[in-house]
Amino acid sequence: MSKHIDKGAFQLERIVFFSDAVFAIAITLLVLELKIPDVHVRSNEELNQVILSAFPHFFSFVLSFVVIGIYWVSHHRLFNYVIAYNQRLLWLNLFFLFFIICMPFSSEVYGIYAGLSSAFYLYVSNIFMLAFFNFLTWRYIAKKSLHLSQGLENPRLVLYYQLRAWTAPISFGVGVIISLFSNTGLPALLTGLSPLLIFPLMFLLRQRFKDVAG
Amino acid sequence: MSKHIDKGAFQLERIVFFSDAVFAIAITLLVLELKIPDVHVRSNEELNQVILSAFPHFFSFVLSFVVIGIYWVSHHRLFNYVIAYNQRLLWLNLFFLFFIICMPFSSEVYGIYAGLSSAFYLYVSNIFMLAFFNFLTWRYIAKKSLHLSQGLENPRLVLYYQLRAWTAPISFGVGVIISLFSNTGLPALLTGLSPLLIFPLMFLLRQRFKDVAG
Amino acid sequence: MSKHIDKGAFQLERIVFFSDAVFAIAITLLVLELKIPDVHVRSNEELNQVILSAFPHFFSFVLSFVVIGIYWVSHHRLFNYVIAYNQRLLWLNLFFLFFIICMPFSSEVYGIYAGLSSAFYLYVSNIFMLAFFNFLTWRYIAKKSLHLSQGLENPRLVLYYQLRAWTAPISFGVGVIISLFSNTGLPALLTGLSPLLIFPLMFLLRQRFKDVAG
Amino acid sequence: MSKHIDKGAFQLERIVFFSDAVFAIAITLLVLELKIPDVHVRSNEELNQVILSAFPHFFSFVLSFVVIGIYWVSHHRLFNYVIAYNQRLLWLNLFFLFFIICMPFSSEVYGIYAGLSSAFYLYVSNIFMLAFFNFLTWRYIAKKSLHLSQGLENPRLVLYYQLRAWTAPISFGVGVIISLFSNTGLPALLTGLSPLLIFPLMFLLRQRFKDVAG
Repeated sequence: MSKHIDKGAFQLERIVFFSDAVFAIAITLLVLELKIPDVHVRSNEELNQVILSAFPHFFSFVLSFVVIGIYWVSHHRLFNYVIAYNQRLLWLNLFFLFFIICMPFSSEVYGIYAGLSSAFYLYVSNIFMLAFFNFLTWRYIAKKSLHLSQGLENPRLVLYYQLRAWTAPISFGVGVIISLFSNTGLPALLTGLSPLLIFPLMFLLRQRFKDVAG
Repeated sequence: MSKHIDKGAFQLERIVFFSDAVFAIAITLLVLELKIPDVHVRSNEELNQVILSAFPHFFSFVLSFVVIGIYWVSHHRLFNYVIAYNQRLLWLNLFFLFFIICMPFSSEVYGIYAGLSSAFYLYVSNIFMLAFFNFLTWRYIAKKSLHLSQGLENPRLVLYYQLRAWTAPISFGVGVIISLFSNTGLPALLTGLSPLLIFPLMFLLRQRFKDVAG
Repeated sequence: MSKHIDKGAFQLERIVFFSDAVFAIAITLLVLELKIPDVHVRSNEELNQVILSAFPHFFSFVLSFVVIGIYWVSHHRLFNYVIAYNQRLLWLNLFFLFFIICMPFSSEVYGIYAGLSSAFYLYVSNIFMLAFFNFLTWRYIAKKSLHLSQGLENPRLVLYYQLRAWTAPISFGVGVIISLFSNTGLPALLTGLSPLLIFPLMFLLRQRFKDVAG
Repeated sequence: MSKHIDKGAFQLERIVFFSDAVFAIAITLLVLELKIPDVHVRSNEELNQVILSAFPHFFSFVLSFVVIGIYWVSHHRLFNYVIAYNQRLLWLNLFFLFFIICMPFSSEVYGIYAGLSSAFYLYVSNIFMLAFFNFLTWRYIAKKSLHLSQGLENPRLVLYYQLRAWTAPISFGVGVIISLFSNTGLPALLTGLSPLLIFPLMFLLRQRFKDVAG
């Protein structure tokens, strides 16, 4: 580690802007999975058909947008506390970004093969890895001996942020468990709706940690 | 909401730079819809033919560039007034960006199926959603009780900006109405020209709000 | 125009960062034209063949990289002088960026149809438009009455920068003129080498304007 | 060179942010090589097969991610020392970025033709050029007479950074040498594992330069 590691705010800003650029590109590349099939379309009815048939793609597109959005907001909040960095934080952040970059791919697989549970498991694994590295980063910057952050002295606040990281994979995980029983009818619908669990989970968490969540 | 939400200018800047990156990527991805067909071209005449046949694509490309440009300028102006943020503003901005991200897709559909009104309606819906979230964001930051902005005390100025948000969908909306009557000949031409209405509308608005528009 | 137009450095910075993001994306999208054909390759010899056959693509890729690089350096230099902005400068910059965004497309057409003069003319037109808007922007910010720039008081300096904008299209233009005579043999080679004229032209210009070019 | 070249920190920042945007886009475009083949998949077993068959692609994807990550960290460290710039540094940086931009292409070729040594050589050449321009830039900014950097007075520190630039191509180079003997069985495995040499090499370097590496 160089002695110049704390040249100051600019080097830290650069990490954040690089991350933001990666987030922005990954979230925008999601749109590339919305593709109009090479079918010869000649009437409005046919085009409506084609657009409607793209609905599962659109669903996974919106879902991935919200997931990336949630982790961007978390990343934004995390670096609000960071005041210094070291090589390990740099690489923890890069590995977290790796799974952000994977999202357009697993989202596309999920969109194309919405009916196959393997595609759903791949997608949920990606979100699990996002949560895992988000969690690791929160834990790492909160370590007092490293002096990387300011304002995270309260262990309940750190716990709150660490638990928040897991709301997305837990919600999707419930969907995975349901899908193990059946992949059609009501269970399939419940699996599809499982991401919505994020919102009550976040609400409950905020209630439970009212003292620190503000 | 964290107590550190106003760490200061940097966290706010980050929202703006993330948005700018999304704008920049979406506006640049538009070019991907300009594709040379996989036709075997051997002479200059054939290539000229191919380039000319890409004209409707080029038209929707330029149109979408101008539309994204208009909303970027509006976003640029909006964050000129913003001095603080909260979770709701973060997500309002993310939903606005969602429809920016959709533009390359709806623009491509419009470019490919320029003759079909369904494609035009999809395109106009996208612009309508852009206007809607732009409008919502102006309204939200202008709320005095939230202390999110500075310099928007004059309600006529806020009204001016809110109305500006609607010039694009109103212009395209006129095209939609014309297209309901007929989709060929003069009505088709007028539909195609309807976006040009943006300029007189903006001019009229500036005249009407001369006292605040400066 | 809003009264808050000079909130200060940040709003100006945002224009520059948005432009940089567009430059960065356009220059990186160039790589997408390097495509390995869907030929079934089973031996090293066949792969070498395929890589070698991509050479014209690689040539136009490098050429476009240098052209975008030249205009990025010019843009970087231009905003070195800019101290304020107005709506017109915003849109001048957006139109300039429009032709930056077009580069991956015209570069790809030039790469695929390297042997056809139509493709070359399309490519040179794009560069001409870049030069034109670069020139217009230099001229606009140098207008004393607008107070948009600082340090451009010397009219010879402004002239120097305006002439620099034209070195690229003039070099390619020489290629166009040669290509009018013949499209094979030595003339074709000279057309291909014409971009290299940029370097002596820039050198001559710097010699001629030694007093201001420093 | 303009007299205004040291307008200050902002112009320097802009070079860094432009570079970061290029890094971010190139690293994110890597994901585009992960493509689901257009095979008709109807069961989970078939989809698992398809996902598993994408493994060599995934391997080159991760590898390229780490390589770009290493050079981003090095670039981040380099500009920590830079306090001024000139045209030559601008273009050295642009040429370095050129080979960053090439990575998604050579990575894709390597992923598709993992079994062919030509693809591996192309990939290693790209990494070699990255190292070469990274090395040149370290050497250039360290030149005392140019006053471009601060904190690089110790020649051992400069040597340390210059040697670090070569760890990646040396590791891959070992793989190239092994591949010259045989392209199957154990040698093929060792070639595939050669990139892992980066880590012991970096460790040894840090040991050897403990006095400056901190």
